[in-house]
Amino acid sequence: MPASTPSAPGRPRSDLNATVFAATLRTVHELGYADATMDRIAAAAGVAKTTIYRRWPSKGALITDCVVDAFGPEAPPDGATREDIVSWLVRVIVAKVGEPGVGAAFAGVFVDAMSDPGLRDILETRLQEPGRLVLQELLGQPTDRVLLLVDVIVGTVLHRMGMTGAPMAEADVAALTEMVLHLLR
Amino acid sequence: MPASTPSAPGRPRSDLNATVFAATLRTVHELGYADATMDRIAAAAGVAKTTIYRRWPSKGALITDCVVDAFGPEAPPDGATREDIVSWLVRVIVAKVGEPGVGAAFAGVFVDAMSDPGLRDILETRLQEPGRLVLQELLGQPTDRVLLLVDVIVGTVLHRMGMTGAPMAEADVAALTEMVLHLLR
Repeated sequence: MPASTPSAPGRPRSDLNATVFAATLRTVHELGYADATMDRIAAAAGVAKTTIYRRWPSKGALITDCVVDAFGPEAPPDGATREDIVSWLVRVIVAKVGEPGVGAAFAGVFVDAMSDPGLRDILETRLQEPGRLVLQELLGQPTDRVLLLVDVIVGTVLHRMGMTGAPMAEADVAALTEMVLHLLR
Repeated sequence: MPASTPSAPGRPRSDLNATVFAATLRTVHELGYADATMDRIAAAAGVAKTTIYRRWPSKGALITDCVVDAFGPEAPPDGATREDIVSWLVRVIVAKVGEPGVGAAFAGVFVDAMSDPGLRDILETRLQEPGRLVLQELLGQPTDRVLLLVDVIVGTVLHRMGMTGAPMAEADVAALTEMVLHLLR
């Protein structure tokens, strides 16, 4: 199969996604969440705005997919204990939220969702439910407990990022891990 | 002293603050954080935009003061134990974040702060430092531990609000309280 070029019509979905997601994170990182409009993201990606809107009907939908992509299909090592899994999860979230644009995109879409029930549905379907199911399987815990665990880890890491602009120090990562393990006991 | 009217020049600072803060929360609640512009807040308050800008040079500064005001000078009951204090703190934060506009204003200003170091300074000086000092005095814990405790409580409560649009259920409030107490042991 010949390699597609950036301007080729009908280029593969995954190729366009990667271009747009990278441009989204770059724009959010450089301009902040509020000023990262669909117009500016399209310009940064070198893609027509109509092309972006065909795939993502709103900024909220685009940012959600971008965050899902940023977290990727990560998995803990085989044979991991509950302690290993929680430690791995906290570290993955700290690392991802610390990547340029990811923390601001993630937190920004939550704030928009507070006043937009339609966006909450998108977040729940695309981000929260798939994550919850994986964690519930891994940890063997009831739904309510897994949802609280996600609130605690993601909320804490994003709040720290908003307050300091920097990822957590190692001692805090360890304390957060220990605290979450206590929740599962 | 004669009662001041809303249009009187030189009306007391506290009177103008109360009018503008109420209009800010109402506007954020109705339109969402992003669309609650200084223009719209001024219109909702029935105050000239220049009057607002004279007191708050930016939306971030206004929202920060509004959030500080919303949390108010709360204090735990006299003679409270560490358990009482943490339980009181979690409940105050859950209740305040659940008031119309407060959660979205609070979370929105954090997101803006992620790409705005000047706003991070305002947040730290006006909101985080005063809160930290009070809690450090009350709990007798080192700075790092108190900062993490605030990240955990506020981050968790805001994340839940973003995900569900509703405050936490009682069982989760109790689990969060228990988890934070474990952090202090």
